[in-house]
Amino acid sequence: MAGSSFGTIFKITTWGESHGKALGVVIDGCPAGLELCEDDIQQYLNRRKPGTSNITTPRKEDDSVEILSGVFEGRTTGTPISLLVRNTSQKSGDYSEIASYYRPGHADYTFDQKYGFRDYRGGGRSSGRETIGRVAAGAVAAKILKQLGITVFAYTRSIGPVQADMEHFDRDAVLNTPTAMPDRTANEKAIAYLEETKQATDSVGGCMECIVKGLPSGIGDPVFEKLDANLAKAIMSVGAVKAVEIGDGCAVSERKGSENNDAFLISDGQVKKATNHAGGILGGISDGSTICIRAHVKPTPSIYRTQSTVNKSGEEISVNIKGRHDPVIVPRAVVVMECMTALTVLDAMMINMSARLDSLVSFYNPGKK
Amino acid sequence: MAGSSFGTIFKITTWGESHGKALGVVIDGCPAGLELCEDDIQQYLNRRKPGTSNITTPRKEDDSVEILSGVFEGRTTGTPISLLVRNTSQKSGDYSEIASYYRPGHADYTFDQKYGFRDYRGGGRSSGRETIGRVAAGAVAAKILKQLGITVFAYTRSIGPVQADMEHFDRDAVLNTPTAMPDRTANEKAIAYLEETKQATDSVGGCMECIVKGLPSGIGDPVFEKLDANLAKAIMSVGAVKAVEIGDGCAVSERKGSENNDAFLISDGQVKKATNHAGGILGGISDGSTICIRAHVKPTPSIYRTQSTVNKSGEEISVNIKGRHDPVIVPRAVVVMECMTALTVLDAMMINMSARLDSLVSFYNPGKK
Amino acid sequence: MAGSSFGTIFKITTWGESHGKALGVVIDGCPAGLELCEDDIQQYLNRRKPGTSNITTPRKEDDSVEILSGVFEGRTTGTPISLLVRNTSQKSGDYSEIASYYRPGHADYTFDQKYGFRDYRGGGRSSGRETIGRVAAGAVAAKILKQLGITVFAYTRSIGPVQADMEHFDRDAVLNTPTAMPDRTANEKAIAYLEETKQATDSVGGCMECIVKGLPSGIGDPVFEKLDANLAKAIMSVGAVKAVEIGDGCAVSERKGSENNDAFLISDGQVKKATNHAGGILGGISDGSTICIRAHVKPTPSIYRTQSTVNKSGEEISVNIKGRHDPVIVPRAVVVMECMTALTVLDAMMINMSARLDSLVSFYNPGKK
Amino acid sequence: MAGSSFGTIFKITTWGESHGKALGVVIDGCPAGLELCEDDIQQYLNRRKPGTSNITTPRKEDDSVEILSGVFEGRTTGTPISLLVRNTSQKSGDYSEIASYYRPGHADYTFDQKYGFRDYRGGGRSSGRETIGRVAAGAVAAKILKQLGITVFAYTRSIGPVQADMEHFDRDAVLNTPTAMPDRTANEKAIAYLEETKQATDSVGGCMECIVKGLPSGIGDPVFEKLDANLAKAIMSVGAVKAVEIGDGCAVSERKGSENNDAFLISDGQVKKATNHAGGILGGISDGSTICIRAHVKPTPSIYRTQSTVNKSGEEISVNIKGRHDPVIVPRAVVVMECMTALTVLDAMMINMSARLDSLVSFYNPGKK
Repeated sequence: MAGSSFGTIFKITTWGESHGKALGVVIDGCPAGLELCEDDIQQYLNRRKPGTSNITTPRKEDDSVEILSGVFEGRTTGTPISLLVRNTSQKSGDYSEIASYYRPGHADYTFDQKYGFRDYRGGGRSSGRETIGRVAAGAVAAKILKQLGITVFAYTRSIGPVQADMEHFDRDAVLNTPTAMPDRTANEKAIAYLEETKQATDSVGGCMECIVKGLPSGIGDPVFEKLDANLAKAIMSVGAVKAVEIGDGCAVSERKGSENNDAFLISDGQVKKATNHAGGILGGISDGSTICIRAHVKPTPSIYRTQSTVNKSGEEISVNIKGRHDPVIVPRAVVVMECMTALTVLDAMMINMSARLDSLVSFYNPGKK
Repeated sequence: MAGSSFGTIFKITTWGESHGKALGVVIDGCPAGLELCEDDIQQYLNRRKPGTSNITTPRKEDDSVEILSGVFEGRTTGTPISLLVRNTSQKSGDYSEIASYYRPGHADYTFDQKYGFRDYRGGGRSSGRETIGRVAAGAVAAKILKQLGITVFAYTRSIGPVQADMEHFDRDAVLNTPTAMPDRTANEKAIAYLEETKQATDSVGGCMECIVKGLPSGIGDPVFEKLDANLAKAIMSVGAVKAVEIGDGCAVSERKGSENNDAFLISDGQVKKATNHAGGILGGISDGSTICIRAHVKPTPSIYRTQSTVNKSGEEISVNIKGRHDPVIVPRAVVVMECMTALTVLDAMMINMSARLDSLVSFYNPGKK
Repeated sequence: MAGSSFGTIFKITTWGESHGKALGVVIDGCPAGLELCEDDIQQYLNRRKPGTSNITTPRKEDDSVEILSGVFEGRTTGTPISLLVRNTSQKSGDYSEIASYYRPGHADYTFDQKYGFRDYRGGGRSSGRETIGRVAAGAVAAKILKQLGITVFAYTRSIGPVQADMEHFDRDAVLNTPTAMPDRTANEKAIAYLEETKQATDSVGGCMECIVKGLPSGIGDPVFEKLDANLAKAIMSVGAVKAVEIGDGCAVSERKGSENNDAFLISDGQVKKATNHAGGILGGISDGSTICIRAHVKPTPSIYRTQSTVNKSGEEISVNIKGRHDPVIVPRAVVVMECMTALTVLDAMMINMSARLDSLVSFYNPGKK
Repeated sequence: MAGSSFGTIFKITTWGESHGKALGVVIDGCPAGLELCEDDIQQYLNRRKPGTSNITTPRKEDDSVEILSGVFEGRTTGTPISLLVRNTSQKSGDYSEIASYYRPGHADYTFDQKYGFRDYRGGGRSSGRETIGRVAAGAVAAKILKQLGITVFAYTRSIGPVQADMEHFDRDAVLNTPTAMPDRTANEKAIAYLEETKQATDSVGGCMECIVKGLPSGIGDPVFEKLDANLAKAIMSVGAVKAVEIGDGCAVSERKGSENNDAFLISDGQVKKATNHAGGILGGISDGSTICIRAHVKPTPSIYRTQSTVNKSGEEISVNIKGRHDPVIVPRAVVVMECMTALTVLDAMMINMSARLDSLVSFYNPGKK
């Protein structure tokens, strides 16, 4: 099981390597009747494109999506939607040297150990380009969620030591700054910091956050299919993510119960919570408040300086990895986090439709009392 | 999908509520030929029992396991192993009052929203007693892993502000102190801190850690079924866990690439790493070094003081939750984390057996060259 | 994967061997709010009990079911329903001899080959008693279907050469004759034939049929999850079934298109079909007419005469299998077929709820136009 | 869940409609190290092409496959293999008329009922062209099975009343006659019969059979994942199949136990069976003899004569379906049956690798005694 499928009802299967002919995704279980065109998807893919600023790789990736099936007369038919992005600007020549050794911090060694050999061109299947399929599918999930009154939105929380100030949250900045930070001042500082880091032939990590607004209570399941458990898997499955927090996350381990409990109250005749330390999930099930997930991303492992490693003949060697690399991964990963969250939430909502007998009865036997 | 199954090949299905007749688990896909008796499982269940010290709930839970199927003449047969633990000392009377309102920090409200009503006795399915099935199944997984040369071991890293000193790791202390800390000095401090917390009618959170030693490289899959992604789901699915870290976890977001990369080297003729910031996983696949996972656990939501909440009639009320509660969840959750890790790792190993064509050929057609 | 789970949303996991301590099933994903008590299930289990006539085994199986979880105040809670049946009258002594050899027509040899050894007592997991879990779970599915206006009903179509006359279908006879035939005359003939067969120390096969009435159109999926494909798997998974037919089944292979096509027509303002050769399924999806499935069951392999086989030492031997056996399996398998059909249909209905975007919108965002 | 995935470890996901841009399949879980090129797959696709004789549709389908991912330097990498076939000769104009009504025997009505509308061009997703993905994936599975010493081979057993004489089985004839019958005399007769049928503006059904040779004993699981249950699902999921038989199939329902049991014997020091009524499967697990499956296929529903049906406005109408249709489906479905069988068997073999503890120990801890 190479493990390239995600979801139970709204199920996606991604495929493709960084330097193969193409990458893509098959979305199975998309409800029929959604208006969908290439542009809906292209807008999301554009957000993960590099080359739009100094702080991302100068590689040009002209990722243009084609819908091959599942849409007829502008609407989804309920059958699988196959999405294709051709690889156009990948040059395999850049990577031939790394075939002989294992780059520190990359999956070269573990792929070789698992499969006996690997596609060494640009990381192959473990390249960041693998996320193209996730983003293309996530764009479709997000479009459906919007029709259900739900928005999913991710942004950069910090880059190295530079934190975004959440007091002045500026959503527009997320989509229009190179750092995807919701704070233009922090964006400037982060850019300066990244320039410095590049000068020092280094890279840096960062933190990203995703919020879901409008999700009704009752979504997610007890025990193993908790909404937070599935979100944790979804986000941890994104390359370079090393930690996932829900709500106040790690902070809870030093906190008192009296501080951490969210009191219930009534507001506008509705049950609400006075605070949201829980991040919108109690016992694995959404409570109607904003879902909040945070992910910590490691620094780009490819850096422009000499590193120690071993080659395939079992010799210790020093290497200088060539190529063009992002000094930080986070700004381009933000849309991936957003898409994985949308996919997880939508699938949980579809599964939830049969949780109550009376829902089944209304659906199939509405005349019955 | 109530979501009570976990795993693909080694698949478990748990069931039971805190105040029902019994709780249990069905293990499907356990290999045939394992020597197994009730005591193998009972030892693990005893580690999650309360009532063994001042700092856990004084509730007595005499959880005694019965093997109902899948074992013949002392060995597993390959067919489902059904394990049963009868509820004996649960008194429903203690809980009748909470039927009418939603306890802050608990799943009462979300269950009602999802299902239309709930088993309000002691949390029902969202009670900590739900983990009995996980632990019983994990004991079986751990026994198999041992035969494969792999040990899984979890412990308390911190309770509130009290950190275990990892320099003087004492494995024996984990199994024999009330806090499950690997450091007897910290254990003493934590007990004092917990006594204080109880006095103050409060509770506190903590952090637990699990390590896996002896796991070969090559386990886990790229993309969605990454080993770390499945571990994140497994651990986040344990009630009260709000954050999961792999290796250096959250710390990577403030780190440089030059600090965070683990250099490969040769030691005893084998590929090893100079450091293990990655926590034993690269690109979702084990790299042969120690796997390290950390989880942050929120404070017990039930505390002995007045809290604000709402009742089922939509009125704001003040409540004092009765019952007997642990001032901290971590020491009893440690064995649950260990078991979820064992289940995840074993399943990934079973799935991995067909990753290479030559493994299939050796298995089924050994004569072929 | 021992393969003891069935279904995607309404998912059951069965366990237990013929001579273990108990057998049972866990039902996960049952909607909350269904009134359920032991008697609902017991009625179905009673239909598969032996010992109620001359033509079934004289073994007494007093199968009494206990609900261990998932029901609170008389209604399902949405959490797993664990059902238990203790083995009470199984005597292992009867079976010890067969440990050393492989009974023709049984799974003894294949279990040994797969697992390295087997529970030889009465067939172990491959015993007909394995179906207890299927029937207990199917009783719950059938109760839900009833509330959706759907009935599932199975009966014996033929025993050896004796065919039921479907012109005079008598549903009452199915539940009240030893053969479960819907025709009292055929029932008499079949009993006589079975007596004769027993006298001749032989056994005989038969055919059973299941119909589903009231199923709306649109249930089932194209391609691999066709409703008929899942029914075929469900029914073929019942021990001793060797063929499954949908609608006119095998007969279609000698038929002309002009004879086999079902013309659509309008009746009472509804789309109906003039005939139902298709058995209610077109392209894997229900068409609103009666679903009709037929299964062919092999003769009981245990017969009271000398047979040739081999023992575990690889020697050819002659054996006389002792024990008490049914001369025909069909009458007791009818309720199993009915239950597997109910489980398959209900799961398909639950999955179908999100097939259209407008269903999702009505469910979650009813105010939206 | 549109249900376009098949398999657990060796998992395929197909996509595409008859008149969309393309059709294809993603194979996930293919072992690394298999030599694979487009021609391996093209050979199988060519077997399902129409237009090679008088008795298939004169439509030209120039189905040329492209490997988009998962193969590097001529070998599979263990990551998903994406296969693409562009639709080139489909003319949507031919089909526009059928948009307004429901063709008898087709899935038009049920798709509309399920999804609210449908891609009416040539059947859309329910077209026979959907099988392109199955065949492309099956070619890969068959190539792996060959390396394990296993052959899967399907052929036409009968067309209408014309039966192949199995006494003179001619494998070459299957691949080189228009009927795919293993008997050249029957082939001639069937062609004459089909010409006659076409003249009479009618179509006819038929029967196909698939055998698996070389499969070791022990493959398949007890209970729900029986090898025969999964084969039944796999084959019944092929459009137009209405019945599946294993071994002697339907015939067993009129047979005595003494006739139907296969006696075990020793031959060349190996356990064998004197007969193979069971079709190579006992208790859901392979017994080492030849697996034999039979499928009954309905007549092509599209025929060149006036039929009664209803239109989308709910009026009864008479229609003459235009287009180019096969007078019989079987000869082109034979390779689909072969491929579905190969996929099922290979997946079962991969799952089986962890059935015994000693297999796990040999694989992961070979030094252990």
